[in-house]
Amino acid sequence: MTEKFDAVDVIRTKRDGGRLSDGQIDWVLAAYTRGVVAEEQMSALAMAILLNGMDRAEIARWTAAMIASGERLDFSGLSRPTADKHSTGGVGDKITLPLAPLVAVFGVAVPQLSGRGLGHTGGTLDKLESIPGWRAALTNDEMMAQLQDVGAVICQAGSGLAPADRKLYALRDVTGTVEAIPLIASSIMSKKIAEGTGSLVLDVKVGSGAFMKDATRARELARTMVELGTDAGVLTVALLTDMSTPLGLTAGNALEVREAVEVLAGGGPPDVVELTVALALEMLAAAGRPDLDPAAALADGRAMDVWRRMIAAQGGDPDATLPVARESEQVLAQADGVLDSLDALAVGVAAWRLGAGRARKEDPVQAGAGVELHAKPGDLVRAGQPVLTLHTDTPERFARAREALEGAIGISPAASLPEPSLRALVLDRIAAS
Amino acid sequence: MTEKFDAVDVIRTKRDGGRLSDGQIDWVLAAYTRGVVAEEQMSALAMAILLNGMDRAEIARWTAAMIASGERLDFSGLSRPTADKHSTGGVGDKITLPLAPLVAVFGVAVPQLSGRGLGHTGGTLDKLESIPGWRAALTNDEMMAQLQDVGAVICQAGSGLAPADRKLYALRDVTGTVEAIPLIASSIMSKKIAEGTGSLVLDVKVGSGAFMKDATRARELARTMVELGTDAGVLTVALLTDMSTPLGLTAGNALEVREAVEVLAGGGPPDVVELTVALALEMLAAAGRPDLDPAAALADGRAMDVWRRMIAAQGGDPDATLPVARESEQVLAQADGVLDSLDALAVGVAAWRLGAGRARKEDPVQAGAGVELHAKPGDLVRAGQPVLTLHTDTPERFARAREALEGAIGISPAASLPEPSLRALVLDRIAAS
Repeated sequence: MTEKFDAVDVIRTKRDGGRLSDGQIDWVLAAYTRGVVAEEQMSALAMAILLNGMDRAEIARWTAAMIASGERLDFSGLSRPTADKHSTGGVGDKITLPLAPLVAVFGVAVPQLSGRGLGHTGGTLDKLESIPGWRAALTNDEMMAQLQDVGAVICQAGSGLAPADRKLYALRDVTGTVEAIPLIASSIMSKKIAEGTGSLVLDVKVGSGAFMKDATRARELARTMVELGTDAGVLTVALLTDMSTPLGLTAGNALEVREAVEVLAGGGPPDVVELTVALALEMLAAAGRPDLDPAAALADGRAMDVWRRMIAAQGGDPDATLPVARESEQVLAQADGVLDSLDALAVGVAAWRLGAGRARKEDPVQAGAGVELHAKPGDLVRAGQPVLTLHTDTPERFARAREALEGAIGISPAASLPEPSLRALVLDRIAAS
Repeated sequence: MTEKFDAVDVIRTKRDGGRLSDGQIDWVLAAYTRGVVAEEQMSALAMAILLNGMDRAEIARWTAAMIASGERLDFSGLSRPTADKHSTGGVGDKITLPLAPLVAVFGVAVPQLSGRGLGHTGGTLDKLESIPGWRAALTNDEMMAQLQDVGAVICQAGSGLAPADRKLYALRDVTGTVEAIPLIASSIMSKKIAEGTGSLVLDVKVGSGAFMKDATRARELARTMVELGTDAGVLTVALLTDMSTPLGLTAGNALEVREAVEVLAGGGPPDVVELTVALALEMLAAAGRPDLDPAAALADGRAMDVWRRMIAAQGGDPDATLPVARESEQVLAQADGVLDSLDALAVGVAAWRLGAGRARKEDPVQAGAGVELHAKPGDLVRAGQPVLTLHTDTPERFARAREALEGAIGISPAASLPEPSLRALVLDRIAAS
């Protein structure tokens, strides 16, 4: 590569509201990955991107340059079509667990390269690691073999995919530049495109417990990612889904695995089932099978069969007893009425403080910690009845978890019972135009 | 200091268009100076300030926090009033050399804490260092004694003034954040206020050879600095002056000293005399003496007397022969007509490439190198007549200097002779409102 570019010129271009050229983008990301462009230079550029934006072609090139910084996977040797799903993260979002085996039932390969949790949203790997024996790290060959054989794999993303993204994300985290939509979209999509999936369904969360608190920005993020996937030849669809209250009745690692298994057994909370089926329909349609009925495969045990094989293939015992926290406390309703709000962020922070999540990458998590919900918005509650149960191995954490929950439970007089239909879970669907 | 602040919160506040509180500003600059706030965090904050601005009170607090990072000087023990002058830098700007002794003639103390040059504008210390024996570094005691005795001192700014500014300037230089007016204004004014002068006259240059290319931004910078000085109790006035063409007939270290001495001897180019006298009038008025006639002190040798004492006090020999470059070449007019443009930036870059300036702080400069002008805009020229003489000790530099000058000399048919009065040097005057 001839270095005819200069970091300050690239920064100035974006600072002054201009477009970055393909050459500038390729150079700046490659040079940043090699350490030629300094952290403080990338930080200034990230802030300029946050404030002045990037257009569709710039974002596509930025994403391609991130992909070019690392390895790519290739699923074209599989005899099945591949479908991937990504959620922007929410409280109680265990959907990947029932969804991956459910879609695999129909002959579609579902590679779910996942991460650990940081902050108030849990990580899929943390949840599965509460299953005795289960291991997250697979070689590429192991992953391919499991996709071919079982059809579904949920494992740790290797460090070879888009290494520029890892470096850039760590920088954005300390410089107030996480919130730039072009950078969020390219961060997510660079890894998904590098994974080599044929199709991708995005679950973009909106609400207090989501990364995006308002629908306008969530929709903009969804559209940006759909465009990026489409431009890269990946059939991409996004659902905009509600995250104002937790998904299902649990937030916490083993608690959520237990709930996922209930769904796979044909039961489970209606909202978890609804979203699992909605996303499965999208993934199957993207894989060329819009005619299938995924709900039936939950009811008749086929999805459970794939789940058991998927867990066992990674060393887990699907019949093992899941860990339970040593201590629990209840949070009671303060009045009679209708539960009209149960704030997702507050529940997420409470579960995090109880030990289900981590504040720094190197922190351990408690498998049994978390929050159990006994009512959902719209339900009638009575004063003194438990609304939540808090679980932890370390009871000194109860006080700070309760602090997080202050004001999080809203109860109205029962006369004003809202229409259940107003509580839509899937708010919108965004596909390539 | 209790650290109740967080760098990311401070960055987010400015990123989202908010005001930084006094506490945030004090904390972030102190923490940055100590290395607690990282370079990449300050870089993101600088970009957010560049794009979202700061209001008058924020800039004043930012400046005060920069001053608080270092020592302050105190001229209150002197028996004379003090007046200081600062130029934002231009090509051929040797005004400080005749101005400081001229104002000192009238009993006003003139402390000129100066720097070396970087890029296409020369540094006052580089110019004076072409005088055999002259030394730039004085202790605070030596500086005070010279101010009391001679009345004028031009010396190196100590490293103790506003150390946060030095660190921040180096960062801005590599992150495309030099151009933020609040940061430029606070950088200049923090050092001037820390110097403890009673009054300050600013020479804000505008035009191709200036840091500010357009009058709107130059005026905004001038106003911001006048407000900052006023808010800090320093009587501050700014002149907006033209820098579309070099000042005087020389750009280069010894070349400019020779021209300054001509002005002190009652001669010299009219534009250098005009600006010297205009700035002297402002400084004398600010020091409480609006009634004096500085031009007379150039004509009758009083300013020259102070110059000689000032140079001698710092070890220089005012009678020594100044260095002359070993080689010279002429640049000839390509046509008959009126010289209607002679671009300041091009001449500055040419002088720099000939060896008068430096690209990095640690580079040496050539005392004799530079550009001599034989005509100024508005003058009649004839094809084949010399317009410029280039001087250097290293003749391999001529080619790149000529490259810089391509298109820099504009000649029009003589019929369209412009009104001399259209070539105003002082474009505006900005005082506290």
